[in-house]
Amino acid sequence: MEKKTLIQNCTVLTFDGTKPKFLSNRDILIQGSTITAVEPTSSFENVNAVIIDAAGKLAVPGMINTHAHVPMVLFRNAGPDLNANDWFNKIIFPLEANLTPEDVYWGAMLGIAEMIESGITCAADHYFYMDSVARAVEQSGMRANLVWAVFGHEGYQKLEETLVFIERWQGKGDGRITTWIGPHSPYLCDPDFLSRCASEAKSLGIGSHIHVSETAEQVTLSFDRYGKSPVRVLQDSGILDYPCIMAHCLYPSDEDLEIIADHPSGIAQAPKTYLSLAMGLADLPKYLRYGIPVGLATDGAVSSSNLDLFEQMRLTGLTQKHHHRDAEMMDLDTLLDLAFQGGARVLHQPKLGNLKPGYLADLVLLKQDRASVHPVINHAANLVYNLGAGDVDTVICNGEVIYLNGEHQTLNKAEIYAEVDQRLERLLKIDLKRKVADYPS
Amino acid sequence: MEKKTLIQNCTVLTFDGTKPKFLSNRDILIQGSTITAVEPTSSFENVNAVIIDAAGKLAVPGMINTHAHVPMVLFRNAGPDLNANDWFNKIIFPLEANLTPEDVYWGAMLGIAEMIESGITCAADHYFYMDSVARAVEQSGMRANLVWAVFGHEGYQKLEETLVFIERWQGKGDGRITTWIGPHSPYLCDPDFLSRCASEAKSLGIGSHIHVSETAEQVTLSFDRYGKSPVRVLQDSGILDYPCIMAHCLYPSDEDLEIIADHPSGIAQAPKTYLSLAMGLADLPKYLRYGIPVGLATDGAVSSSNLDLFEQMRLTGLTQKHHHRDAEMMDLDTLLDLAFQGGARVLHQPKLGNLKPGYLADLVLLKQDRASVHPVINHAANLVYNLGAGDVDTVICNGEVIYLNGEHQTLNKAEIYAEVDQRLERLLKIDLKRKVADYPS
Repeated sequence: MEKKTLIQNCTVLTFDGTKPKFLSNRDILIQGSTITAVEPTSSFENVNAVIIDAAGKLAVPGMINTHAHVPMVLFRNAGPDLNANDWFNKIIFPLEANLTPEDVYWGAMLGIAEMIESGITCAADHYFYMDSVARAVEQSGMRANLVWAVFGHEGYQKLEETLVFIERWQGKGDGRITTWIGPHSPYLCDPDFLSRCASEAKSLGIGSHIHVSETAEQVTLSFDRYGKSPVRVLQDSGILDYPCIMAHCLYPSDEDLEIIADHPSGIAQAPKTYLSLAMGLADLPKYLRYGIPVGLATDGAVSSSNLDLFEQMRLTGLTQKHHHRDAEMMDLDTLLDLAFQGGARVLHQPKLGNLKPGYLADLVLLKQDRASVHPVINHAANLVYNLGAGDVDTVICNGEVIYLNGEHQTLNKAEIYAEVDQRLERLLKIDLKRKVADYPS
Repeated sequence: MEKKTLIQNCTVLTFDGTKPKFLSNRDILIQGSTITAVEPTSSFENVNAVIIDAAGKLAVPGMINTHAHVPMVLFRNAGPDLNANDWFNKIIFPLEANLTPEDVYWGAMLGIAEMIESGITCAADHYFYMDSVARAVEQSGMRANLVWAVFGHEGYQKLEETLVFIERWQGKGDGRITTWIGPHSPYLCDPDFLSRCASEAKSLGIGSHIHVSETAEQVTLSFDRYGKSPVRVLQDSGILDYPCIMAHCLYPSDEDLEIIADHPSGIAQAPKTYLSLAMGLADLPKYLRYGIPVGLATDGAVSSSNLDLFEQMRLTGLTQKHHHRDAEMMDLDTLLDLAFQGGARVLHQPKLGNLKPGYLADLVLLKQDRASVHPVINHAANLVYNLGAGDVDTVICNGEVIYLNGEHQTLNKAEIYAEVDQRLERLLKIDLKRKVADYPS
């Protein structure tokens, strides 16, 4: 018999099409991995289910992280106050050079613990030693779309190794794990390499996940090299004929946006990274007018400090209002649709992003007891501008309770901290120019 | 005999001049209202004191909110996604018109509960019915600089009533309450009115707190009316000869900045308000180059949604990097000095803003147990970009523990919520154009 869970007496965020609605005094019935009913409280009198009392709490769909480098939490805040080039070349590259697969595993465990505590139930991760990440995802109970990042200079043999990873992990973890192909970017993978990725995507029936047009310089470089934009390079390689997560894409032309809209591609947005590295901001209302799916992302914690989509959601609202000097921009309905359902569209996961019968049971219960979330005059504004990762109480993924009343059900945090700390002693003993010198303090 | 409190085994943020330092494994001794020692753990073996175990926690100076309208938490999120004019005229004015002194008292109680939970130990509040706010401050144990806002059109009799408030509350609450004069702004108070405020400030030996140059339109208006900038209007009125909190001041000229730097004035910054109302951003590094004291502020919760200086601190770092398209701008040392010591400078409170022997015992203990704050490679970055209001564990003000392990010691939150909810039923039954209609849901 399928396991049943009954969540009682909460407020529920659900979507009718793109329109968010908040329903008070609801019970949520979960059977197996699926939400089977959302009804007024006390509709289910004699159901034989595990009961979760959610009085006073807000239930929302699990958040979907459309672009991350999860194991980089190992190096959280290792390079503050640096411009992108220095940050990448002086901090990231030297630190990552010493990583072992086991380091990546423990980094993934720490990052997954953080994501679960922050209400993220699904992450599109783009890193290396991805067997380690897949192992951590499988154990944690969360959902993930994993790609093994590959650079053109690593060659076709390396690409083929990543294909073996894809076949090894596709559908594992009761279907929670999906695997796609991960060419790093059109500036670090040449057109032939991208075409090869496209044909592999076709033969495996999968999508891809790639960094695109992060800076104006990358666009200029692409025109210098190929006489066309990075998006056009991708189109011509054939890779956009299959689902594609485009990370960042801050500098597309109108023609690029038309191309993206005409293909099964979506864009991942991590505004905290863009602010902290001073990269500029995307014109998101324009992307949405083109009908392009947009989802939220954390990026890696070395640029964004944390893996917190509540913060990215809030920053998306605030920065778009600022960017357009128009407080009516990125209104709450648009923002909630982007934050919750947008990620499901970007990942081509039609059973995620909503809290309704028939959807997968990935959901989060938020406490509403801090004085900063009282009174609730407007549920949508409260969710976006007041609630946050610190209010996450309980997390359910694929019908399983993986975090309950602030306690992990699948991970041992003390063990993770100890493993991470012990590994950092070795990893940080390299010649970093600044800031890291004071560790451990 | 003076009461002693000993906080054991924490990491301490302290400042040597403007330079932040993080000291590990420290005990903090408090006697009466003052910090008397910060020494390596176990330095105090036989002291007869109340012991607070702070193992794993970070102790920071209490945060100082340099500009707020605390009771507006009553209308939190009542006007989302609106431009400043609509927000003010369609939402704020009609809602505030119905407030009674008792409503303001309960609003102040809610806002103070929120500030204490968020690690704020001192607030410069700018509102009306300020006897209600003073009463709430006195009961709560927090510290405040209070002004009764007065508009030019209310006339000199109203101004004199606010002077009576000043004399009634000055120094009350064991010295925690200071009171200054509160002309609303140079665009709503004419030069004669401001001159009168200046002479009252002189005779009472106090400062003032005023909104200045919030928008470019206000500056244009001032030139149209008086042939000079709002800052110059203030200078000519004489009010800048005494301490002055300038709220916002987003559009000063270089000449204005020279004037401000030459007077005992400081600027209060609330970037969340500026983003959410699309007001633009200040060039803070420039203000600092002029030597102008700058502190953080929450503004009112109707524009900024909450009273959270951790968020304002983080947004100050992120938005300045973005504004200057330079990730090295507003580095961590500058930002921490601004966030903690800047507020003390703006309020002319030389015994606040630092955690050192001789300073007043206003301090906050932060938990560091969420996965999102591990590992701590850089304490300063962790404090600014990872820790937040949700990590506040214990708050001490004027030597008294007012919040301990997540529990209020001076306020009854259930009573506050009940009073607020009951009052909102009456207050929200007015003709608001949008958004508020769904209350209660």
